Amino acid sequence: MKSSKHLKTAISPTRSENYPEWYQQIIKAADLAEVSPVRGCMIIKPWGFAIWENIQRILDKGIKATGHKNLYFPLLIPMSFMQKEAEHIEGFAKECAVVTHHRLAKDAEGKLIPASPLEEPYIIRPTSEAIIGDAFSRWVQSYRDLPILVNQWANIIRWEMRTRLFLRTTEFLWQEGHTAHATAEEAMQESVKMLDVYARFAEEYLAMPVIKGEKSESERFPGAVNTYTIEAMMQDKKALQAGTSHFLGQHFSRGFNIKYLSAEGKEEFAWTSSWGVSTRLIGGLIMTHSDDNGLMLPPKVAPAHVVILPVIHKEEDRATVMAYCERIAEELRQIYFHDRHLEIEIDARDIAGGEKGWSWYKKGIPVRIEIGNKEVGADTVFMGRRDKDYKERQSVTRQEFIKTIKAELDDIQSQLLLRAQAFRKQNTTVITNLNDLYDFFKGEGGGFALTHWNGDPAIEAKMKQELGITIRCIPFDQQKNPGKCVFTGEHSPQPVVFAKAY
Amino acid sequence: MKSSKHLKTAISPTRSENYPEWYQQIIKAADLAEVSPVRGCMIIKPWGFAIWENIQRILDKGIKATGHKNLYFPLLIPMSFMQKEAEHIEGFAKECAVVTHHRLAKDAEGKLIPASPLEEPYIIRPTSEAIIGDAFSRWVQSYRDLPILVNQWANIIRWEMRTRLFLRTTEFLWQEGHTAHATAEEAMQESVKMLDVYARFAEEYLAMPVIKGEKSESERFPGAVNTYTIEAMMQDKKALQAGTSHFLGQHFSRGFNIKYLSAEGKEEFAWTSSWGVSTRLIGGLIMTHSDDNGLMLPPKVAPAHVVILPVIHKEEDRATVMAYCERIAEELRQIYFHDRHLEIEIDARDIAGGEKGWSWYKKGIPVRIEIGNKEVGADTVFMGRRDKDYKERQSVTRQEFIKTIKAELDDIQSQLLLRAQAFRKQNTTVITNLNDLYDFFKGEGGGFALTHWNGDPAIEAKMKQELGITIRCIPFDQQKNPGKCVFTGEHSPQPVVFAKAY
Repeated sequence: MKSSKHLKTAISPTRSENYPEWYQQIIKAADLAEVSPVRGCMIIKPWGFAIWENIQRILDKGIKATGHKNLYFPLLIPMSFMQKEAEHIEGFAKECAVVTHHRLAKDAEGKLIPASPLEEPYIIRPTSEAIIGDAFSRWVQSYRDLPILVNQWANIIRWEMRTRLFLRTTEFLWQEGHTAHATAEEAMQESVKMLDVYARFAEEYLAMPVIKGEKSESERFPGAVNTYTIEAMMQDKKALQAGTSHFLGQHFSRGFNIKYLSAEGKEEFAWTSSWGVSTRLIGGLIMTHSDDNGLMLPPKVAPAHVVILPVIHKEEDRATVMAYCERIAEELRQIYFHDRHLEIEIDARDIAGGEKGWSWYKKGIPVRIEIGNKEVGADTVFMGRRDKDYKERQSVTRQEFIKTIKAELDDIQSQLLLRAQAFRKQNTTVITNLNDLYDFFKGEGGGFALTHWNGDPAIEAKMKQELGITIRCIPFDQQKNPGKCVFTGEHSPQPVVFAKAY
Repeated sequence: MKSSKHLKTAISPTRSENYPEWYQQIIKAADLAEVSPVRGCMIIKPWGFAIWENIQRILDKGIKATGHKNLYFPLLIPMSFMQKEAEHIEGFAKECAVVTHHRLAKDAEGKLIPASPLEEPYIIRPTSEAIIGDAFSRWVQSYRDLPILVNQWANIIRWEMRTRLFLRTTEFLWQEGHTAHATAEEAMQESVKMLDVYARFAEEYLAMPVIKGEKSESERFPGAVNTYTIEAMMQDKKALQAGTSHFLGQHFSRGFNIKYLSAEGKEEFAWTSSWGVSTRLIGGLIMTHSDDNGLMLPPKVAPAHVVILPVIHKEEDRATVMAYCERIAEELRQIYFHDRHLEIEIDARDIAGGEKGWSWYKKGIPVRIEIGNKEVGADTVFMGRRDKDYKERQSVTRQEFIKTIKAELDDIQSQLLLRAQAFRKQNTTVITNLNDLYDFFKGEGGGFALTHWNGDPAIEAKMKQELGITIRCIPFDQQKNPGKCVFTGEHSPQPVVFAKAY
């Protein structure tokens, strides 16, 4: 057993010292991802990718359960397609990676250069409405072909100027659902239904409470009639847009000529929707739950639920301690927790016990158990939970541990959600006059400000400039709460959420 | 009930009439995929993509069970990285899609043009050795960091001149495993081990028998020391390379500076391997099992196992027939078959029974059952199997059907493998003199020719030119079978497989 006298435990800097840098350090300490030599792109490492695999597996079920089928469209989009919907190209032109050649050759000095220019350049998809709209126009002929309900898991490239791991990267992974319907109502209902799927997933699996609502016009997806969003509050009180769903009206069906013959024999344009969530959710997860000691993972999406830490002081104990660890691991792996069997790690590295324990605490694993000679003898485990202090550990019998592990994990899951809900409540304020709004967002302050607003985009623009805040959403659950606009005193049908945002 | 007098059943053309066109028509009839407006890229449609999802789920387990962890590397590779391993760039230079700009703008006439040129162009990954080699050089410091065993599921772009759905497309989906080891032996064993994983998967799940072997030098992966392959025989007797695994020696570790400090304190280059299979497997699946009536799917990878076809002659029967269908579907969905519950489709479309039945026969679903008033009354189902003639159907009691469905599906799975094995055996010949080799491959003839060869690449080149055949592999199971080279009469340690190939 090696000593761990000079063990560095907490994350430096802390959240209050430097929140953005704390975020980077959390990712590094948990080994979730790293920056790559490709501008703004990340390498998602195994511990981070396993979180994404859990998100994928769970969400995929939800997407299929609501009648959607997975398929796959090309990565590349002909440049001319991007122009078929006017707002769409306006919104994405600045972020398009352009493929212009299809070969490499060597110049006179032996240096590689692009060769064989393409007749028409291709864009790497920044989203797939354009390539999918083109396909829908071929697939849809009659009302009998509708609705079309499809989804794809894919990589996306948007050439972002300022990037941050998971939150905003040039390449990211996501799912994008695309649907076409015979009526506006159906397409609208579809987009609201999928926002519900996202909201339930965020709360039930990521333990991240969200506000569902509609975006104001200035924050809409380029080409959408309405954009719906789920907004979460991070620990620096900023909002994170965690998922969006768009009612696209007939914008794309007109741009791409998606027409159908109705039951009455009339030619009509279809109504479409699209919706997506991305690896950004992992950024949200990190900033919702982690503390100054590292990552903290909700059990339902953690890559592993329990780590077993053998503590071997004398070499002669190794065999019995390891056998006891293996036996517990096997017992745990039989247990079914929500949608999968428990996943167990055994960390047999020959490093100091404190260093080993802390490395998993920083990785956010929900439960760790230490097993030494004493535990083997007494048939117990020495257990600690990630949502409690590192030193708060207790001895429980093996039997009791096996019997209660599911309840412990459910309790951790609930605790994380409760904490996040309490934090959001504490930092959400109803604002009824303009001075209070300025005070609320002064300096480092902030949170969610429920504020009546008359709907004027000029006011939004002014607030963005003066206070760095935007309207995150017009919440669904405030629709029957009329009042007075704090900016003009005019009647306002319902308050909106102002906040600083990622 | 509508009539189906003029129902077109069989696929046109048949295999013997025009095999390549038959292949395209099978894909169309089963609605697996279609060509897209992006040169050489396909849209994988839901029925085709669900096969890929099954392949992914099963292989992913096999990859993880052998100790590998999934992660994700960037889509783009800096152009300069491609040059670090000399053979690698030679092999891929002609197929690289090059990203040169990161913005779109409008010219004076309002036409979109690429804008904001990149300082260094990026290549869309044609494979990821280069970007991963760079990361490994940072991740590997000491022998304690080895082995590194990782895998990613990703999309790939290779600018192919002649493309064919699934078999060779500009964009395809695959998994690529990448590993680094302290010794040559370990890296070599790793690459052979993963070939085994592929071979078992091909036979046990795709019902596609394969020959495992090593590639001759001319067929090696660009940058590999050895390339191992699994080769399958299609129904036109051509070979399909269905998966490869590469022992990369120290080529990439030298190119990318992947060094470790050994236990003895010496600085050494690591040894690496890589291995992959792609959506090409679906092409192999189609060409191994399908017949002149459509696709035929092995139950273990079929998107659904059973389709229930309600036959409603009188509207007043609808409710009872549908209730009976739903009940059977629910009973079936409780049954666990290999690694998932049975997946059941109910086709309630209001079209003629024959058309409906044939549409599923063409889609290759393993089992279909027709349910009409008669079946409801007698508590039976009217069952047909895809591996038997369309008209060969039988009435069985519902109870019996539920009790035996797993056995039926297992039998279909076995029958498909047995047929494919018999076909391969029938078309594999030991060739001991040169005239026989020419005769064997004359005109439309061919198959696998087990032939002794002295190892001279000039002979390979000549055979490629004269007979259009290549050495598919040097089979592992023929390693103790010396003989005489049919081209020179020289001693040959073992025969190789010559064949025409995709």
